[in-house]
Amino acid sequence: MSETELATPETKRSALGDEIVGRINQLAAISETPAQLARIFLSPEHRIAADLILVWMREAGMAAHLDAIGNVCGRYEGDRPGLPCLMLGSHYDTVRDAGKWDGPLGLLTAISCVADLKRHGRRLPFAIEVIGFADEEGVRFASTLLGSRAVAGTFVESALNSRDRDGVSMRDAMLKFGLDPDHIGAAARARRELLAYVELHIEQGPVLEQKDIPVGVVTAIAGATRLAAKLTGMAGHAGTVPMALRRDALAGAAECIGAIEEFCKTDEAGLVGTVGYLDAMPGATNVIPGRVNFTIDIRAPTDPHRKMAVADIVRRIEAIAKRRNLALQLDVTHENRTVPCAPWLRAQVAEAVAAEGFPVFELPSGAGHDGMAMIDIADVAMLFVRCRGGISHHPDEHVETVDADAGARVLLGLVENFRPRE
Amino acid sequence: MSETELATPETKRSALGDEIVGRINQLAAISETPAQLARIFLSPEHRIAADLILVWMREAGMAAHLDAIGNVCGRYEGDRPGLPCLMLGSHYDTVRDAGKWDGPLGLLTAISCVADLKRHGRRLPFAIEVIGFADEEGVRFASTLLGSRAVAGTFVESALNSRDRDGVSMRDAMLKFGLDPDHIGAAARARRELLAYVELHIEQGPVLEQKDIPVGVVTAIAGATRLAAKLTGMAGHAGTVPMALRRDALAGAAECIGAIEEFCKTDEAGLVGTVGYLDAMPGATNVIPGRVNFTIDIRAPTDPHRKMAVADIVRRIEAIAKRRNLALQLDVTHENRTVPCAPWLRAQVAEAVAAEGFPVFELPSGAGHDGMAMIDIADVAMLFVRCRGGISHHPDEHVETVDADAGARVLLGLVENFRPRE
Repeated sequence: MSETELATPETKRSALGDEIVGRINQLAAISETPAQLARIFLSPEHRIAADLILVWMREAGMAAHLDAIGNVCGRYEGDRPGLPCLMLGSHYDTVRDAGKWDGPLGLLTAISCVADLKRHGRRLPFAIEVIGFADEEGVRFASTLLGSRAVAGTFVESALNSRDRDGVSMRDAMLKFGLDPDHIGAAARARRELLAYVELHIEQGPVLEQKDIPVGVVTAIAGATRLAAKLTGMAGHAGTVPMALRRDALAGAAECIGAIEEFCKTDEAGLVGTVGYLDAMPGATNVIPGRVNFTIDIRAPTDPHRKMAVADIVRRIEAIAKRRNLALQLDVTHENRTVPCAPWLRAQVAEAVAAEGFPVFELPSGAGHDGMAMIDIADVAMLFVRCRGGISHHPDEHVETVDADAGARVLLGLVENFRPRE
Repeated sequence: MSETELATPETKRSALGDEIVGRINQLAAISETPAQLARIFLSPEHRIAADLILVWMREAGMAAHLDAIGNVCGRYEGDRPGLPCLMLGSHYDTVRDAGKWDGPLGLLTAISCVADLKRHGRRLPFAIEVIGFADEEGVRFASTLLGSRAVAGTFVESALNSRDRDGVSMRDAMLKFGLDPDHIGAAARARRELLAYVELHIEQGPVLEQKDIPVGVVTAIAGATRLAAKLTGMAGHAGTVPMALRRDALAGAAECIGAIEEFCKTDEAGLVGTVGYLDAMPGATNVIPGRVNFTIDIRAPTDPHRKMAVADIVRRIEAIAKRRNLALQLDVTHENRTVPCAPWLRAQVAEAVAAEGFPVFELPSGAGHDGMAMIDIADVAMLFVRCRGGISHHPDEHVETVDADAGARVLLGLVENFRPRE
């Protein structure tokens, strides 16, 4: 190899990154609150954003429409009409006070890739569909993944009765938006229509930055178990109860937090455990806490791994409570199974990464994504793009244009070289 | 000793216990809120309670008056008028939703002891004064010990400008009550007027119950240091940040709580340390806490012991924060020096305990008491009475009548045999 061929990834650039980042900024201007980005399901801003995205889809050569739940759907036919599709996408709703990259980056990158194919007059031996899911974050109603569940045919009808913080039901919000809540089923797609579902998304974690790599191949969307723990001891005066006679619920909770951290830290296969919420009662400087409520969030790249970890952590917490003479109530409040990325598809993502000259680095997704719903009708893969400091769901969420471009080139390469499962 | 002389303490009873408990219940009926006992400084209930206590003082043969800050003051002359006094007392204000024993037990026991002297026509070679302090708890205004500070001549005038939760200043509250805020100085007593200050009080802790002893001799009112700690790490997604890359402020706080507990537990000289308040932010199940505020309350029977403990605990917390890459802010928010009980006086309390057939058991007071102010004009001693479960500042606060009686007999014996310091 001659020296001139040794182009580093940083110097190899396309126009895709600039187009994507420009549109990211346009979309970020569509917000319920001007100072804090918030684009919520079935809001006026949802409609404005959808209309803009449909324009971009059509410019990219796609037939585009809003589906029965408010997802934006674009289709770029293959070398003959009606072929099964490779589906690309992500969501375009946001949390409140959000970053602008979480969701839109994957959707806009997919549209720019299709636009590139159109510019070059390329048709592939399969169709490409790009989908922008209307609700992934679940900010407005009780459930998440409403958009992708509708597409996967797993939307639960009873969700229509759930109400937002203003008391508006999802059913009424859909009617007001101009959608028919009795026809959500029309959004559902059949397995035979899809060759695969591939999503590009920001990492929302610090691993790629730490490794100094712009993109990563996702191995699985980690399953999660959430528990609610209540420890009850005996409140008492901070001055009058000797240490040996205390039943301090907060000291007990602190030992549990230490045990969870230690257990997860010594695990070498991606286990993470978090105590994010803790309430110590009565909460006065000079009173020994008699009751503490706290939450535990456990995630691992495989279900057996997570289940073994949860069982082990529960045993440790039970032992701590027993030794300290604290009453323990421990309830599982939430459980999500792991969604593995399909090995055949993951291999093609890895090939596309390598083809762009990047190291192939594999990592699990600790956050949930639309693939958790799409797995019911298609094999799933994901490509992560590095984000600054691992910060997400926050205005400081940031992706460098060079990384957005790197992600787009990898996704385009994947699409151009995609082979359906044999 | 013949068998008939082997009376157990439980069978030896006086009428004092019944009188005291009867009055405890009468006083408990004087409350701002009928369902929850609350008798607050300078309230109408303060006035009603004062008037009732003054009646009891006069019935016991004392000259009685309300002093310049609302303390009730009774004087039982010695064998000639104008002698220096042994001062007995406690407070008659309460916290909100209080127990009925904290404060009134000591005041009413002292009155019953004087009444017993009167019944038997006894005059002693010194006067006895009984004082009921109008404010010890400090519920209404920012400061505690307002009554005893006025008596000790250490009342801080600026406290008159502090306001209650309804915006009423202490000055206006005093005027409305019928007191002259410009003459609080008249409540101050001189050191030469007092031979000693002795207070009987419920333990407010579980030690006497644990030891199965009705009364205890207090060694010192423990000093206290309170600190406010702020730990700042980095918030992050509970699923996406690997354990090794976390700067979890709550996991750091948990380690601090464990270190404080362990340090105090291994101390054998009465050190106690409490984290009573903790706030983990942002406080969501699926977010790694980026900031935690918590309080630390450290008490020990001597000041050097407490100061060494605080310094050691601060070093441990600093080391934990440094190792975890957390920013630490640690501020001392409150510091009270230890008030030792005078050995000569404490010895007489111990003699009185032994004379009633009880084991002499010494313990520090972890809670604050009026002796903390009275130390400025007199030597101080305290006698603790067992309370059920160590519960205080709570409606479940309870003292058995037999224990109230035991406390009264010990206090009466102390008074009858009291010798001033040589």
